[in-house]
Amino acid sequence: MRPRFLSFSRQGRHGYGLAVAGGVIDLSARHAARWPSLRAVVEDGALVALAEDNAGRAPDLPLDDIRFEIPVPSPEKIICVGVNFPDRNEEYKDGQAAPSNPSLFIRFPRSFTGHGQPLIRPPESPQLDYEGEVVIFIGKGGRRIPEADALDHIAAVSLCNEGTIRDWVRHAKFNVTQGKNFDRSGAMGPWLIPYTDESQLADIRLETRVNGEVRQSDRTGRMIFSFRRIIGYVSTFTTLVPGDVIVTGTPTGAGARFDPPVWLKPGDVVEVEAEGIGVLRNTIADEAAS
Amino acid sequence: MRPRFLSFSRQGRHGYGLAVAGGVIDLSARHAARWPSLRAVVEDGALVALAEDNAGRAPDLPLDDIRFEIPVPSPEKIICVGVNFPDRNEEYKDGQAAPSNPSLFIRFPRSFTGHGQPLIRPPESPQLDYEGEVVIFIGKGGRRIPEADALDHIAAVSLCNEGTIRDWVRHAKFNVTQGKNFDRSGAMGPWLIPYTDESQLADIRLETRVNGEVRQSDRTGRMIFSFRRIIGYVSTFTTLVPGDVIVTGTPTGAGARFDPPVWLKPGDVVEVEAEGIGVLRNTIADEAAS
Repeated sequence: MRPRFLSFSRQGRHGYGLAVAGGVIDLSARHAARWPSLRAVVEDGALVALAEDNAGRAPDLPLDDIRFEIPVPSPEKIICVGVNFPDRNEEYKDGQAAPSNPSLFIRFPRSFTGHGQPLIRPPESPQLDYEGEVVIFIGKGGRRIPEADALDHIAAVSLCNEGTIRDWVRHAKFNVTQGKNFDRSGAMGPWLIPYTDESQLADIRLETRVNGEVRQSDRTGRMIFSFRRIIGYVSTFTTLVPGDVIVTGTPTGAGARFDPPVWLKPGDVVEVEAEGIGVLRNTIADEAAS
Repeated sequence: MRPRFLSFSRQGRHGYGLAVAGGVIDLSARHAARWPSLRAVVEDGALVALAEDNAGRAPDLPLDDIRFEIPVPSPEKIICVGVNFPDRNEEYKDGQAAPSNPSLFIRFPRSFTGHGQPLIRPPESPQLDYEGEVVIFIGKGGRRIPEADALDHIAAVSLCNEGTIRDWVRHAKFNVTQGKNFDRSGAMGPWLIPYTDESQLADIRLETRVNGEVRQSDRTGRMIFSFRRIIGYVSTFTTLVPGDVIVTGTPTGAGARFDPPVWLKPGDVVEVEAEGIGVLRNTIADEAAS
């Protein structure tokens, strides 16, 4: 099994570690001076070496003692790809062929919560929807990265439930910003898995389940815009830096596409799973009255 | 004259200070331990006191010795308001009435450069365009801020040239992300002016000039979405925190609206000016071949 890094909080302290049988090796307790965060480990290109150095070490903490954070809690950028699976483009029924460039939007870190935490349904809308996606973390930065070299710029992979407040996506002319940025409406994690081999992404199954029922299921080999293309395109306009997060698009089958639409409700359990990357599981809760 | 704070770099070091006759009082040299950045001063609500404490002090550095950075170099968020002046909405000629909610998009800090630095025209497009705008900085954070209280959450104001690569705004279905995020395609500054009085924003003239010719000129009193409304609306979905930046929309008259369109070209000088906030001046340069 590949090494599984995670970011966590415990007793108000931020930390990071490696998940092993029986719990978590607390790497931040040992290495915080050199690498204050998992992002710093990524920037230093030290993921694989750190995993090897700690192979066989006993866990310091039971998993129950920690609260998952998103894997890179404070990245410079989180860039999300819109419509990126063929059937999903057809769902828009606007008669347009597959687009020639990826649609992109930005989410703030605070729009995500960690694995095991509830996704928050805000009082403003009942239309909380799921979108299971594969996440890549940039390891080596760059601008105008050639597609041929693009995969060398990936440090790690993870999963995202790119939770969306559907009616707020169309709240104004242009842009989905507000419907994609409600606090803790999405999730990322649980693991940050070092990326060392193209087979980890090339054609893996990506599936989303709600209360055990499969709602989305497709393979990354069918993406309209490949991982190479996304990295090449995004780095055309912005310099990618280590720790940057790219959320690469969701298969058909979000709740908005049912007739009538089926929204997430408190108590529902959503799981996003991809081969070799893990299972991201979150319940749904209404926002607590303040 | 109101105090004029600035962020700068000098000999590779980041700093912040106060502009006075003859130069800059280097506040970071005195206060870096307590406030490592101007964002920390804003978070601490210390702008006005810091200006008073340094009143009458002689400058430490000539203005020529420093390079302007954007006033808050690493905010958690930079949120931009789209179409926000009446005539600008009509420019879209889509027969729609004024929208009921503000259109919002997000820019990364690296899409901006400081006052006096060139805006960069990338080799991918000749369509670099200007958009002069008023900027507000959040001082007191919050979620679901009532419009009645919204102005109390503003710590300071500044100016933005929300430079845009026009054809890349429509490069894909939905969202203007890529056309708004080319590295150093926009600018912010020069000053961060503490906000203490509603008259600083309520109905001030905002003007953009290219090579001295007035291209945009309007008053903030004509904004479709007021400063109060913007803060209330944005904080509905995301928690605003101190240092957050909101770029509040541009008047009619961008280069894209001319027939034929008039794009910025190397050597052009763009000035964005607003009463009581200052003049943001940048030249245009082609991106240097790497």
